[in-house]
Amino acid sequence: MLEPERILRLEGDAVVFLDQRRLPLEEIEVRCRDAGEVAVAIRTMVVRGAPAIGVAAAYGIALAASRGDDLAAADTVLRASRPTAVNLAWALDEMREDPSTEHARRIHADEVDRCRRMAAHAAELLSPGTRALTHCNAGGLATGGYGSAVGALLTAWERGLLQHVWVDETRPLLQGARLTAWELETAAIPHAVIADSAAGSLMAAGEVDCVITGADRIAANGDTANKIGTYSLAVLAHHHAVPLYIIAPTTTVDLGTPSGDAIPIEERDPAEITSRFAARNPAFDVTPAGLIAAIVTEERVHRAPFSATLAGAVTA
Amino acid sequence: MLEPERILRLEGDAVVFLDQRRLPLEEIEVRCRDAGEVAVAIRTMVVRGAPAIGVAAAYGIALAASRGDDLAAADTVLRASRPTAVNLAWALDEMREDPSTEHARRIHADEVDRCRRMAAHAAELLSPGTRALTHCNAGGLATGGYGSAVGALLTAWERGLLQHVWVDETRPLLQGARLTAWELETAAIPHAVIADSAAGSLMAAGEVDCVITGADRIAANGDTANKIGTYSLAVLAHHHAVPLYIIAPTTTVDLGTPSGDAIPIEERDPAEITSRFAARNPAFDVTPAGLIAAIVTEERVHRAPFSATLAGAVTA
Repeated sequence: MLEPERILRLEGDAVVFLDQRRLPLEEIEVRCRDAGEVAVAIRTMVVRGAPAIGVAAAYGIALAASRGDDLAAADTVLRASRPTAVNLAWALDEMREDPSTEHARRIHADEVDRCRRMAAHAAELLSPGTRALTHCNAGGLATGGYGSAVGALLTAWERGLLQHVWVDETRPLLQGARLTAWELETAAIPHAVIADSAAGSLMAAGEVDCVITGADRIAANGDTANKIGTYSLAVLAHHHAVPLYIIAPTTTVDLGTPSGDAIPIEERDPAEITSRFAARNPAFDVTPAGLIAAIVTEERVHRAPFSATLAGAVTA
Repeated sequence: MLEPERILRLEGDAVVFLDQRRLPLEEIEVRCRDAGEVAVAIRTMVVRGAPAIGVAAAYGIALAASRGDDLAAADTVLRASRPTAVNLAWALDEMREDPSTEHARRIHADEVDRCRRMAAHAAELLSPGTRALTHCNAGGLATGGYGSAVGALLTAWERGLLQHVWVDETRPLLQGARLTAWELETAAIPHAVIADSAAGSLMAAGEVDCVITGADRIAANGDTANKIGTYSLAVLAHHHAVPLYIIAPTTTVDLGTPSGDAIPIEERDPAEITSRFAARNPAFDVTPAGLIAAIVTEERVHRAPFSATLAGAVTA
């Protein structure tokens, strides 16, 4: 497992990130010396993944506090850095009460602890011999340590439940091929990268027992925003009676958003797809609650109808 | 429109191909001086697309005949070059009766003529304002001129029926982003390239009126093999009540294959996806007839149940 401090940490006068854009070819650190630089790191995806973005923002506020910077201005620039993940707003709200370095580190440690608890719940859903399919990277890199969906796979592997992982390469930025495959390789878990478009035919061939992903925001009714392509996987899984499990901490649940329609979907630069042709590049999609078999948080496994139990799960 | 001779032609002592691997960045010709070299061009995807592969094989036999080479050996090496497209076997069977250059050129001209007729039939299926989604490249490059699915889009555009085309980039070899977008740009048809995984969310947003693709092989019952990802699109289209139209010449219909289970699916080099990680790379998938709204050949529009009318459509 990747040490949480290797993924991101507050060190002296800087927040230090492992640059996720360069992985796995190069392991390079990026040092951000104020909240504005942390916001740029979030926007340009030096750090990505909803829980990791939240931790990054918390460190950004702690850094601003230690420098004596204007905390309201730091909050504003960080809050605007990416729109879909709700963990960003959650962490910034948390840091308003106590902008200390210790608090930011506690938020980080809590996220890793939540991952361990989610993984234990998720493993209960899996039978021996499971061949799981995952999309994007919901690994330690995405959460600041251990991972949500990948954390569930790590625990399932340790318990002898996991046979194989299909890794969607996840265009356009290839987080699956670059990051998830790297994390699974590090853990020596058998896996193969596939073109995103191959998932349907693997399901039709009976080679996928479940789909496991993370989430960027979960609405009060269970509708879940996650990396573009998750919705397609959900429809495909439903058609093939393959369960879709969403693994996410309660910090990803947004009771203020009643359903998926109200979740803002980021449109990123078309140049991520091609610099030559007209393109469109939504970064996330929303999977309706009706297509989700279970939402696993650190507290428990939620089953449909989700609204009742999600409302109870989110601590004030 | 791309001139058919620019895509592939028999010229003097060589079959000359526009190298589709280098498009759109470079327009380079590859000259093949015997049937073995033509087979290599097919296998390495200098030329691709089921009808174009058939034409290439016909030219390969004509070249062998003009050189006085062993025609049985030429047939064997060409027949083995790629497994899924049935047009290859069809064209080689045709050339056994008459291996002349004139015959090969007639096969080529016939394929282009079939495209024009398919396009006219397909346009009848579309209403004004259509926003179509297409996958891979079923354009002039794939058929030796005009195109099957792209041909249908060209005719729909000329008739004022087409508003916009969503182009799946089509991993791993990006035939959509590289070839279809190039053909649509040449025809000045409004389009945008999308990550393959974005198709589902576009359908959910009501931005796709139909899915139009070509085919590599159509079984007697209508099950259709096409570029990997077509099956996923078919399930997604079905879920959203969006019709899927398969546009293909009768040379793509294989009555000797009763259903999709019997269609050989080529597995290509995992290095097309990644050279660093374990990968799996099926090049095609099979879409069950039940998910297809219509199969358009040069003869007519076929509707389910397909077996009856497909059997009548294929000329002996």
